[in-house]
Formats: sequence, structure tokens, C-alpha cells
Amino acid sequence: MRILIINGPNLSSIGSREPAFYGKQSFESALITWQKAYPQCQLTCFQSDEEGRLVGILQSSKESADGIILNAGAYTHTSIALADAVRSLAIPVIEVHISNIFARETFRKHSYLSTVCRGSICGLGLDSYRLGIEALLHLKNAQGN
Amino acid sequence: MRILIINGPNLSSIGSREPAFYGKQSFESALITWQKAYPQCQLTCFQSDEEGRLVGILQSSKESADGIILNAGAYTHTSIALADAVRSLAIPVIEVHISNIFARETFRKHSYLSTVCRGSICGLGLDSYRLGIEALLHLKNAQGN
Amino acid sequence: MRILIINGPNLSSIGSREPAFYGKQSFESALITWQKAYPQCQLTCFQSDEEGRLVGILQSSKESADGIILNAGAYTHTSIALADAVRSLAIPVIEVHISNIFARETFRKHSYLSTVCRGSICGLGLDSYRLGIEALLHLKNAQGN
Amino acid sequence: MRILIINGPNLSSIGSREPAFYGKQSFESALITWQKAYPQCQLTCFQSDEEGRLVGILQSSKESADGIILNAGAYTHTSIALADAVRSLAIPVIEVHISNIFARETFRKHSYLSTVCRGSICGLGLDSYRLGIEALLHLKNAQGN
Amino acid sequence: MRILIINGPNLSSIGSREPAFYGKQSFESALITWQKAYPQCQLTCFQSDEEGRLVGILQSSKESADGIILNAGAYTHTSIALADAVRSLAIPVIEVHISNIFARETFRKHSYLSTVCRGSICGLGLDSYRLGIEALLHLKNAQGN
Amino acid sequence: MRILIINGPNLSSIGSREPAFYGKQSFESALITWQKAYPQCQLTCFQSDEEGRLVGILQSSKESADGIILNAGAYTHTSIALADAVRSLAIPVIEVHISNIFARETFRKHSYLSTVCRGSICGLGLDSYRLGIEALLHLKNAQGN
Amino acid sequence: MRILIINGPNLSSIGSREPAFYGKQSFESALITWQKAYPQCQLTCFQSDEEGRLVGILQSSKESADGIILNAGAYTHTSIALADAVRSLAIPVIEVHISNIFARETFRKHSYLSTVCRGSICGLGLDSYRLGIEALLHLKNAQGN
Amino acid sequence: MRILIINGPNLSSIGSREPAFYGKQSFESALITWQKAYPQCQLTCFQSDEEGRLVGILQSSKESADGIILNAGAYTHTSIALADAVRSLAIPVIEVHISNIFARETFRKHSYLSTVCRGSICGLGLDSYRLGIEALLHLKNAQGN
Amino acid sequence: MRILIINGPNLSSIGSREPAFYGKQSFESALITWQKAYPQCQLTCFQSDEEGRLVGILQSSKESADGIILNAGAYTHTSIALADAVRSLAIPVIEVHISNIFARETFRKHSYLSTVCRGSICGLGLDSYRLGIEALLHLKNAQGN
Amino acid sequence: MRILIINGPNLSSIGSREPAFYGKQSFESALITWQKAYPQCQLTCFQSDEEGRLVGILQSSKESADGIILNAGAYTHTSIALADAVRSLAIPVIEVHISNIFARETFRKHSYLSTVCRGSICGLGLDSYRLGIEALLHLKNAQGN
Amino acid sequence: MRILIINGPNLSSIGSREPAFYGKQSFESALITWQKAYPQCQLTCFQSDEEGRLVGILQSSKESADGIILNAGAYTHTSIALADAVRSLAIPVIEVHISNIFARETFRKHSYLSTVCRGSICGLGLDSYRLGIEALLHLKNAQGN
Amino acid sequence: MRILIINGPNLSSIGSREPAFYGKQSFESALITWQKAYPQCQLTCFQSDEEGRLVGILQSSKESADGIILNAGAYTHTSIALADAVRSLAIPVIEVHISNIFARETFRKHSYLSTVCRGSICGLGLDSYRLGIEALLHLKNAQGN
Repeated sequence: MRILIINGPNLSSIGSREPAFYGKQSFESALITWQKAYPQCQLTCFQSDEEGRLVGILQSSKESADGIILNAGAYTHTSIALADAVRSLAIPVIEVHISNIFARETFRKHSYLSTVCRGSICGLGLDSYRLGIEALLHLKNAQGN
Repeated sequence: MRILIINGPNLSSIGSREPAFYGKQSFESALITWQKAYPQCQLTCFQSDEEGRLVGILQSSKESADGIILNAGAYTHTSIALADAVRSLAIPVIEVHISNIFARETFRKHSYLSTVCRGSICGLGLDSYRLGIEALLHLKNAQGN
Repeated sequence: MRILIINGPNLSSIGSREPAFYGKQSFESALITWQKAYPQCQLTCFQSDEEGRLVGILQSSKESADGIILNAGAYTHTSIALADAVRSLAIPVIEVHISNIFARETFRKHSYLSTVCRGSICGLGLDSYRLGIEALLHLKNAQGN
Repeated sequence: MRILIINGPNLSSIGSREPAFYGKQSFESALITWQKAYPQCQLTCFQSDEEGRLVGILQSSKESADGIILNAGAYTHTSIALADAVRSLAIPVIEVHISNIFARETFRKHSYLSTVCRGSICGLGLDSYRLGIEALLHLKNAQGN
Repeated sequence: MRILIINGPNLSSIGSREPAFYGKQSFESALITWQKAYPQCQLTCFQSDEEGRLVGILQSSKESADGIILNAGAYTHTSIALADAVRSLAIPVIEVHISNIFARETFRKHSYLSTVCRGSICGLGLDSYRLGIEALLHLKNAQGN
Repeated sequence: MRILIINGPNLSSIGSREPAFYGKQSFESALITWQKAYPQCQLTCFQSDEEGRLVGILQSSKESADGIILNAGAYTHTSIALADAVRSLAIPVIEVHISNIFARETFRKHSYLSTVCRGSICGLGLDSYRLGIEALLHLKNAQGN
Repeated sequence: MRILIINGPNLSSIGSREPAFYGKQSFESALITWQKAYPQCQLTCFQSDEEGRLVGILQSSKESADGIILNAGAYTHTSIALADAVRSLAIPVIEVHISNIFARETFRKHSYLSTVCRGSICGLGLDSYRLGIEALLHLKNAQGN
Repeated sequence: MRILIINGPNLSSIGSREPAFYGKQSFESALITWQKAYPQCQLTCFQSDEEGRLVGILQSSKESADGIILNAGAYTHTSIALADAVRSLAIPVIEVHISNIFARETFRKHSYLSTVCRGSICGLGLDSYRLGIEALLHLKNAQGN
Repeated sequence: MRILIINGPNLSSIGSREPAFYGKQSFESALITWQKAYPQCQLTCFQSDEEGRLVGILQSSKESADGIILNAGAYTHTSIALADAVRSLAIPVIEVHISNIFARETFRKHSYLSTVCRGSICGLGLDSYRLGIEALLHLKNAQGN
Repeated sequence: MRILIINGPNLSSIGSREPAFYGKQSFESALITWQKAYPQCQLTCFQSDEEGRLVGILQSSKESADGIILNAGAYTHTSIALADAVRSLAIPVIEVHISNIFARETFRKHSYLSTVCRGSICGLGLDSYRLGIEALLHLKNAQGN
Repeated sequence: MRILIINGPNLSSIGSREPAFYGKQSFESALITWQKAYPQCQLTCFQSDEEGRLVGILQSSKESADGIILNAGAYTHTSIALADAVRSLAIPVIEVHISNIFARETFRKHSYLSTVCRGSICGLGLDSYRLGIEALLHLKNAQGN
Repeated sequence: MRILIINGPNLSSIGSREPAFYGKQSFESALITWQKAYPQCQLTCFQSDEEGRLVGILQSSKESADGIILNAGAYTHTSIALADAVRSLAIPVIEVHISNIFARETFRKHSYLSTVCRGSICGLGLDSYRLGIEALLHLKNAQGN
């Protein structure tokens, strides 16, 4: 299964900062661990601080991925354009967040993406991404039966 | 790891209704599947339509469980009492929902529980529960290291 | 036709209080009058102050009743759980209120039940219940044709 | 008992449209049926698309009717003038609606009339009018005792 | 000075109802009193329950009046059309209300007319109209100097 | 193509006022120009200040027109009755406004009609009407293919 | 009749500023004019920029005045304390404003005083005060009869 | 004087948790202390996590108590049913809270009970209950005189 | 213990008005009663209608009082300045109200002071002050242990 | 006349998707059709998913275009930056939308652009663009006279 | 240049409290430092806890100052009267705040003064005042050219 | 001290437009003036219309600057991503605005940046930037002591 992991603004440096919170493992090394743990998946990762480029990568993923894990960072709360791009996709998109966005500022409680994603996983650190992989695999298996 | 799964109102008959949506497997048979797939966990399940009894089971779980998976159904959106009970617990509580609550009525977009639970997983059908088990196991392992 | 009348919190003593408003007849004697006036109906009555038990009685009524008259009292304005229970029923549910809830406090103007019930009748004293019986009979007849 | 039925805007053609919903009977034939079923009542009907004329008919009904059944259509949600006219009447006014206005757009959930009418009946198709007749008769009988 | 007094919906019977509040004098006799007290004015009165006709009379008053006293009744709170008509006039329009609209329901606290009228007078019974005459005369005198 | 142009309150005198804004051409002469420019259309025009009559003309247009251009003036922002009338029509209705209603007062930003009309054109002066004719012709041609 | 005129903050210099708007007459000379025009009244004037002192003067006026004209300036919109003081008085209090407060900023549309004053007069320049005197005289005469 | 103390959800373990905040004394030992300090009172205590049972105990207390001290915990902010039950009582009910609910989350600032209770006492730890006893005694004495 | 009682606007005449509500005892005589009943306290009282002077007395009380009882009257609902003054104090401040402010107008339900005071007592008449004394004494004793 | 058509995010593939809705013609072929139909115009088209680049193209169009047709897609509802760019232009900008944005989600009802554009055209499919061309031509002709 | 620095409520003791935050320098010594650093300015300082006196000092400053630095403390968020006083001044007024008011409670985010002051400076400690002096000097120089 | 000045969308042409407002000096020449006036600073400037690139430049500035002056233009009011980037920086960031954003449209009154920046300076034209330099220098000196 080809899985595309998309990270939004301010997420380029996960792992190099706040190690007490995320563990000593960086996002890159976590990615390697996940790739080993799920050999049936082909994991690809894309990061951009720019809303328009995230819209573009989503649109162009229609044929190059079987499932998407999307952490849109702050654009989660402000971007209708990203939501429109997700809505136009037929493949499943799982929204993930490292921290519990509901326990933070009020403006982080609203997500334009939750409405259009298949499911949402938040608050479980980097493991939120791994659970997204688990969810996509399960959806594929359920579909295959 | 002792995991307590708590289901709230109108969730007593998952699986017997709307099979097209949840698959042919009932919640009970899913529970058996999960128990087999995760032998290192001891899964227990509790269901009640009454807010007060859900508060009670949460309070009394302090010593009988190592982690909780909570699907509070409609009380998710109205019960400060359940949120208070969750807040008083030291063990991790994961909020799960079968359907994507964000893609439904406006009043389902607010959750009193999201703020106080460790993480939230929603929209992935019965698999939301299994991902909750995965998340609790990961939290325990991370803690163990 | 089997009709189940469900009364919510603070409705156990209708008739024994405020006779000037409801007439001298108690709810119990009104029930007897209605049973006589509508011999083609089998009237059953259930009252509880507990939201969860009202949810339960609604769920278990699927097979024991052909129509429901629901006065959920104060839960009308706060209970999404009751609304979910009503929504899951195939038989018609009529919402009734003794007083004109729209002419009271602002928080009584919103009803979670109105959206999911077949119809609503309010402000007509105990006669609201009798009109509910009339409405259910009419619905059955219309269906029969 | 002299009963005046008042219909507001867009209600001139009830029965000729959407027969699947309202049954094959038109409003006019329903009126004949009701008149036969309730010989003790003298039913009169008035329809206007104009808010001001509805205000006028309400004011002039003080002496020509013993009870009013009012379906103000869309003016239900916007007309304080109609509510003022109802408030100035001593005879009972029952608000009726054919469809369940609470299950439609948000702006239909507020009624200026509910506050000032004696009672409200909605969602029960043309039978809502008949229940209004039942309610007015019951009020008269209760008064008579 | 030609003064046009315009009364809106439900204002056709001022004086015949609630004498305790308005005094025993009817609007008609008050009008006669005012005409005598202010011989330099030519008082004309128009009443309609219909919003559109009030719009029309305002538009056609451009040349037949030197000042307007407007009690739009309930349309005060709902009619943008009336406000547009007032705005298009060059002659001064004074908004009057018999009762203190600010001490009543919340929806009566907003007036579309206050913004576009020259001044507002409320809460002083029928004398509000007479004060409107006083104000128009004063405006004319101030202008004349 | 039979096109009915409906103008609402305060729109009876377009062209005679504010020539700097609308050009020297009156609505009547514009109508003549349009009729010449679009000989394949039969243009009819109706104006009323009364909401109820506008509702009536819309309802009666079902068989006498193939398309409607509607400038409801201030009723755009307050009339659910007009929106209901538009919704009940099968022929296309185009909402037009002479001025840019979005650049004016806040209460003019909401239109009950936009939701139910096929399309909206605003801010382009009297040319908004001509664009409405263009749009109706295009819709008819597209339909014809 | 003893009439107390109370002016609030920023109202000490009426007349010395913006003569184009208020005319060339200062508040002081207007006061003299009014005193002459209404010899049956004994006019007294008090001005303070301090909310607390305005509260105090209102409280102490219970026995020294038969009626009050109150222009509370900006405190109109923020002072519950002034409203409480007005409410505790038995003598009539008329709220006046020189400018049309409804045609200014949104926060000026709400008045804590309107609810508790007998009547309100606004937008008519310094003449608003004179109309207040007229209103108080009329109230006294109506009472005397 | 018979005083009933009612504790709501999550209040069963006061005293066993967070001793630094509440002192070393448990609710039970505090109850003993208060009983000794106020021998003229007969203190009874009831706790339940269930909204419906709290409604029931309030209703049944009409004859078995002379005053009630009510700490409804989280139901304070969500239960109209409890407020209705309090409203139906003739004996005085004092609302108490251990912590300062106004200095916590926004949703804790609204209390359905404050409106219907005789008085409210909050933020003073377990001493809030003792002050409630003092208040009930004072009310009784004032009544006795 | 030195206790400072501060009364805000419109509270200078407690006791002389509305005796049916507050009892026949004036605030002054109540003060004498309390001083006798609590000889271990030294009660001082300060009243002002002016917000700024209340701010000043609070700031200067840092060294002359061991506890404060504050009834800020209407400033409770509007004064951030008073709240700032309370926040800057280390000694405990108890907010008291004679009437049940929650059962009055909506704008009285919000208190800037509740958030910053140690506790709040309302609705219990003049006894609210005495309970404030009780509370301060208890806080001191708890501290002393 | 040089006309620049600007398309925002998710608008790169108009025509290749949802043919049932937009007709079989792609945006590109429509552009060719329009160019032929309006030979007096020089049509240029620009598309970007990136808000900043759209801001840039608007700013740089000051000298290379005589009119702009802007479909900003989802940025319509979120971008103050685009509105600022439009406001700084002297040439006319027409806002267009393919679908009726008012009949979709609530967050699509607000447009930052409507306020600053000359006019808005929406809901008429690809023909919205052609009407934009018509409108720009008309504005130019009106200007030329 | 004559600069008047006005401090509002609770600002009389800057420097004597919370030295860790504001540095060891008191407001008085800071004033001396600024006076030395800007010999071309004549700095005067006024402090009051009373809203009305601040209004007064602003009004009387018209001729005694060339620029004003205003820290209105808590009145910033509640006083329309102060805003009115500032608006009536021709000399520039700079709003300053010691702390970052935007990073505090929600009710501190709104300032009635920001709208009417020339500019605002906040969050930079006592240096906010010095920057205000810099700004006033720059404005004067720019004016001088 | 290395100071980075960041300008957001629509700020590329400051100085070339609206000279009456900003003076004849362009931003570039102002920059040269400031560099001369503050030789102890090394001023660098970056401008972009793209939100993502502004996020990027902020993140990469951690090591190349000692302080930042940020004018995010319209993104001030919409970009949580920029606020997140600012929050992740340890060096001080000063928010500046050329115009008084509080005196403009309502949607410009909210700034996501004010909460996370050290201080804010607005309304003082290009001098806002110079005051930012002054503030950063003062912060550095205060730190150095």
C-alpha cells in the first residue's frame, strides 16, 4: 500500500526540538522504524510551509498514493482550500495531530479538515502517525474482503 | 495490560444494526477478535445508558484498569460530569467514536471529553476501538523505557 | 394500536399539584378517561427522572409499541442521548408539552427532540397527550389506506 | 363553535402540489371532511400572501370567531406585527404547521407566534389543522365546566 | 407646516383599547386637540397594516408634506424597506412610540428606523406624537433663521 | 423566451433619481434598449412595494414566464416568504442588485434569496439586469443542446 | 414644577464647540430661554464627568425635584449604577440625547437607561432638552387630572 | 432544624483526595464536627452521581427536611431538571461550591441553580457547607420572629 | 481580626428602604449587632458611589485590614478596575450581594469580581455580610493551624 | 480591452471533472470560445493554488490589464490579503463563482472580496466568467461615453 | 514640546511592586531619566483612579499640552467617556500599556481608546512610555517640515 | 545588534504609493536613514506575499538575527501558522503596523500575532518601524545589565 504522509507549516523540525515531549527519536528515524514495522506499506513524506503547495501535492496524489496521512498544522484551523482539495480525493485521508489540539487555544478546536477526512487521530505524539498507518491498512483490508 | 472499554448511551446494540456500515461483525465478536489479536491485554467492557453510572464506573476503575477506551456517545457533547471523572484519573483515557462526529450536526462538534482525554480517535468504525488499544499499548511501552 | 406514553423528570406528580392549571383531574384519572375514549388503543405509561432509563425504555419499545407520546420534561432541552434514541426508532414519536414552552425562559425554546420527532404538540395542558393519541391514530389510518 | 382557519403566504395551493406528502386530498376537500366530522363547529377559511391583510383579518375576527387556527407560513419566523395582532385577541389562537419546521433550516426554528399563541401543533401534515379543531373544542368544553 | 402622521400595523384602534393606559381620549380626539393647539400646522393622518403601503405613502409624501411623524409599530423592528423609504426623503421624519419599547422584549430594542430618522421619541404615551409636532416646528423655525 | 423582471420596494423610481450613479437612462428606457438588443426575448416588468403581492406574482408566473429576473430590494434581506415562493418554481430565477449590497450595511450582507435562486449578479448598476437576461438565454441554450 | 437637568461626561462645553451643529446659542443661554418660556418650571442644572457623583445627585434628588431630564453622555452605554439609581426614583426621569445615538457606533445603540427611564428623546439637538420639559409638564398635568 | 445536604457527581470522595487543598479532614469527619457545632440541627447527607436520582431526592425531601444545602457538582451547569426540582420546593435551598467556580473554565460560570436557589456560597472550601448551615439557621430565626 | 466592609454605589441607604425585604434593622444597627456577636473582629465600614474611590480604598487597605467584605453593587458587573485592585491584594476578599443577582437581569449574571475574590456569597439579605465575617474568621483559623 | 482571468486554488482542473455539471467543455475550450465571441477583448488566464502568488499577480496587473475577472476559490472566504490587493487596484475587478456559494456551507457565505470588487456574479457555471466579460465591456463602454 | 503623561486606575504604585518585571527603577525615577534624555520635552504626569477626573484632565489639557501619553489601565476596556474625551482633542494622544494586554484575559483585548488614539504601543514595560515620547517628537518634527 | 525586518503581503511598494500619508520618503530610503541613525544595528529586510515563505524566514532567523520587527500585513488577522512560527522563537519579535488597525474594519481588530509577540506598535506610519528598533535596543540593553 502506498501511503503519503503530508506535514504542514512549522512541522519541518519535529524531533530536533522538545525531545522530552516527543522522545529522543526524530521524525526521520520514526519514519524508518515505521517503514520496517510495516513492510507492506511504501511510506513517502512531504513537508511544506506553504498552503498552496500542500493543495497542489494533495491534488497530484490522486494516482501516486493509496492513502494519505495529513498533519496540516496551523492550516487545519484556517484553510478551506486544503479541505476542498481533500474533498476532491477518492482515496482515504486520515487527519493526525501530535498534540491534543482540543486542550489548547479555542481557535484550535475548529478543524476544516475533520469534516472531510475519513477519520481523525490526535494527542498521541508521533504515534498518531503510526495509528494512521494502522487505520489505512485496516480500511484496505476491510475493502479487500 | 488491563484495558477497560466503556460504551455510553445507545451503544448497546452495535453490530446488530446497520451491518452495511459496521461490517457483519458485531461488537461482541469484534471484542473476541481483538482479545485474540492482543493477548498481552486483558479487555473488559461496560455499557450503560446512564450518565451517573458511567461516572461511577470511571471513578471505580482507578485500581482495576491500566487504561481506558471511552466512547461516551451523546454524553460526549453534554456531560461535564464525565469530563470531571476523566480528569480525576491518573491512567490514560482514549476517546473514541465510530462515526466521524465532525461531519454531523453542529452540536456534535464540541466534546467535553477531548480536552481531558489523552488522545482522540474518530471516524474509523469499530476499528477506532482497536486503534485505541494500539495507542494504550504504545503509551505503556514508551513509559516502560 | 399499542401506544406508550413516556414522562420525564419532575412529571411524576402531575395532577396532585397546581389543580387550578391542570383541572381537578390527575394524570392517572385522565389516563383512564383516554383509555375509555379510545378503546381501539392500548395505553401504557412510563415515568422516570433518569435520562438513561428513558433512553433505555425508548430502545426497548421498538417491538412493544406502535407509537410513542414523549414528554421529556427538562431533558427536552439538554439531552442529545434521548434524541439519538428517538432517531433510531421506526415507529412514530410525538413530542408533547403541557405548558407553552416557548413562552417561558429562553433555554426552554430549544428542543433536541423536535428535530427527530414526527410532530410536536405543546401548550394545551393535559389535552396535549390526548391530541397525541389522535395524531397517532390518524397516522395509522393514513398508513392503512 | 365558530372557528376561523387562517393560512399565510404560499399556502394557497395546498393539496394540488406534492400529493405524495399530503395525501391525495386537497385542502378544500379536507375542509369538507372536517366540517362533516365536527358538525358542532362552523369552519371558515381565509388565505392571504400579504402580512398586513393577515394582521387585519386577525383584528377583525374578535367578534366573528370563537377560536382561530393560524398557519402563518413564512411570516411565522419574521412577523412581529402578526404576533402583536394575536396578543391583542382574547379568543384562543392555535399555531399549526404542516411540516416539522424544527427539522428544516435554522431560521425556521424561531417562531414569533409560539410565544403568544395558546398552543402549537406541527409536523403532522394536514391533520395538524384537525388537531387544532380538537384542541379548540376541548378548550371550550373545559371552559364550559 | 404640513405634517403627515403615519401609523403602522395594529395601531388602528388606539384609544378604544386600554383606556387606563392612554387616558380616555381616543387617537382621533387627540388629533383634534393637537390641531387646535397647533393652528400653524396642517395635520394629516394615515394608517395601514401593510408594510408595502406604508412604503408607498412615504415615497409619495415627498411633495405633500413638510415633516413626518412615523409610528411604524412592529415594522420598526423588521422592515428594512421602510428604512430605505425614510432614507430617500429630504423632509425630516421623527420616529415615535407610545410605549417604552426599550423596556419590553429584546427584539423590540432594535429599530431599523432610528438610524435613518432625524430623531426618536418614545415611552410618553400619545404625548409622544405631540412632542413630535413640537420637534418638527422647532426644526422648521431653526431652519427659517 | 418569456422573461419576467420583478422589482421590489423603493424601486419604482429607478432612473429618475441619482442619475450620476445610474447614468441618464431611466429603467423604462433601459428596458426598451434591452428589448431591442434581445429580440428573441419577450420582456415583461412588474413592480410592487408589497411583499405579499411579490409572492403572488412569483406563484402565478409558473406558466406565463420561462425565466425570472428578481430584484427584491430590501425584502432580499428579510423575506422568507419570497424565498419560499422562489423555491416552489421550476423555471430559473436570477437574483440581481443594482448596487454592491456587500459593501453596504451589515444587515444587507445576508440574502434569503441567494440560497434559492439559480445565480446572483450584483453591483453592476442597471447592467445587472441585462446580464441576467444574458444568463437566462445561456441557460436556455445549454438546456436546448 | 421643579425640574433637574443632569448632564454627564464631556457635556460641560455644549455650545462653545461645533456651533454649526448646535446653533450659536450655548447651553447656558438655552437654559435661560427655556426658563423664560416655561415660567411654571424651576429649572436647575448639574454637570459632572464622574459616574459616582451622578449616582449621588440622582439619589439626593428624591425630595428636591419633581422631574429629571438626564443626558448621561457616554455613561448611557456602560453604567448599570446610573440605571440602578434611576430605578430607585419615584419621580419621572426622561432620557435625552443631543445627537442621534442610533446613527453612530454600534456600542452607542445600547442604553442601560432606556429600560428604566419613563421615556427617551434623541437626535433633536438642544431641543431634545426642551421636549423633555414639555414631556414632564404633560405628565404632571395628566397626573393632576 | 432538619437539614439535608445533597452532593452530586464526583463528590463521593471529598477529603480522601487533595488534602493540601481541603485540609486533612474528610467530608465525613467535617460532617461530625458540624453536627457537634450545631446541635440544634439534624444533618443528613445524600450523594449520587446520577442526575435523575438527585431530582428524585429533592422531590421527596418536601416533607422530610426544613432546608437543603445543594452541591450539584457538574450538573450545576447542565441540568435544567435539577433546577425544575428545586423550583418546585417551598423550603429554602442554598447552592454551595467548594471551589470558586467563577475562576475556572468558562462553561462553569453559568449555573442553572443560582436562579432558583435562595442564595449561593462558593469558593470557601468545605466551609461553604458550614456557611450554608449558618444561612439556613438565620433564615429560620428571621422567619420565627 | 481587622475586617473592612466596602459598599459600592446605591448602597448608602440599606435598611431605610424596602424594610419588608431586608427586615426592620438598618445596615448601621446590623453592623452594631455583628460587632457585638463577633468581639474578636474589628469591623470598619466604607461606602462610596465612585468607582475610583473604591479602587483607592482597596489599594490603601493592604496594611490596615486582615480581610475584606466587598459589595460593589452595580460596579460588580462593569468594573475591571475594581477587579484589578482586588487582584493586587494579598489579604482575602469575600464578594457579597444582598439579593440573588443571578435571578435578576442577564447583565447582572456576570461579575468581574467573582474571578478574583476568594469566595462569593449572595442572595441571603444582610446576612450575606455576616456569613462573610464567618468565612474570614474560618480562613484565619485554618491558616493559624 | 485586455482582460485578465485569475483562478485560485483547486481550479486548475475545471472541465476535466464533473462534466455532468459543467458540460463537456473544458475551461480551456471555453476560453477559446469566449475569445472568438469577444474579439474586441484580449483574454489572458492565470491560475495558482498559492495565496501569495495571487496577491502578486493582482499587484503586477495594474499596467498589463484593463479589467480583471477573479475566481479566488476557497481564498474568497479567508483571504484579507487578496482583498487588500484588489482594493489597491484602479481597474475594475469582477468576482465570479461557478457554483452558488450561498447554497453551500455557512463558511462559504462570507466573501472578503465582495466588499472590494466592483460586482459579483455567481452560480451560473462557466457562464459566470462570460458574464464577467460582458460586464467589463459594458463598464468600458459606459466610461467611454 | 509639552508632554502630559496620564496614568489611570491601579497605576499609582508602578515600580514599588513587582520589581522583577519592571526593573528596579520606579516610575518616578524613570520619569527623571526620560526628562534628562529628552531635554527638548517638558514632561508632566497625572494619575487618578477616577474615570471622571481622567475625562476632566483630558479636556483641560487642550491648551496646556502639545501631546499626551495615555495609560488608562482598566478603563481602556470599559470607558466610552474617556474615548469621547480623546476624540475631542486636536493634539496627538498615544495609547500605551506596560504589559501585553493581548496576551491576557479576553476582556482586555478590546480597547475603546485604540480607535481614537493616534497610535498604540504595548507590551514593552516602562519603555512603552519612552517610545511614546519618541513617537510624539517624531510627529512634531514631521509636522514641522 | 542584528535586526531582521519582515514585511508581509501588499507591503512591497510602501513609499511609492500614497505619499501624502507616508511622506515622500520610500521604505528603502527610510531604511537607509534608520541604518545611519542606529549604527549599532545591522538592519536586514525581507518581504513576501506568501504566508508559507514568511513562516520559513521566521524559522530560519533563529540564528541569523537578535531581534525581529514583523509587519505581517493582512496575515496578521488570519495566520495561525505565523503565530506558531513566532512562538517558537526565543529572540524578541515586535509587531508593527503603519496604520491604526483598530480604527479600520472590524476584522482588522483581531491579531493572532499580538498574543505571541513581545510588544505591539501601531498607527504611527513608517515611524512604527523605527520605534521597533528603539524597543529592541532597549530590550538588549536591559538584558545586558
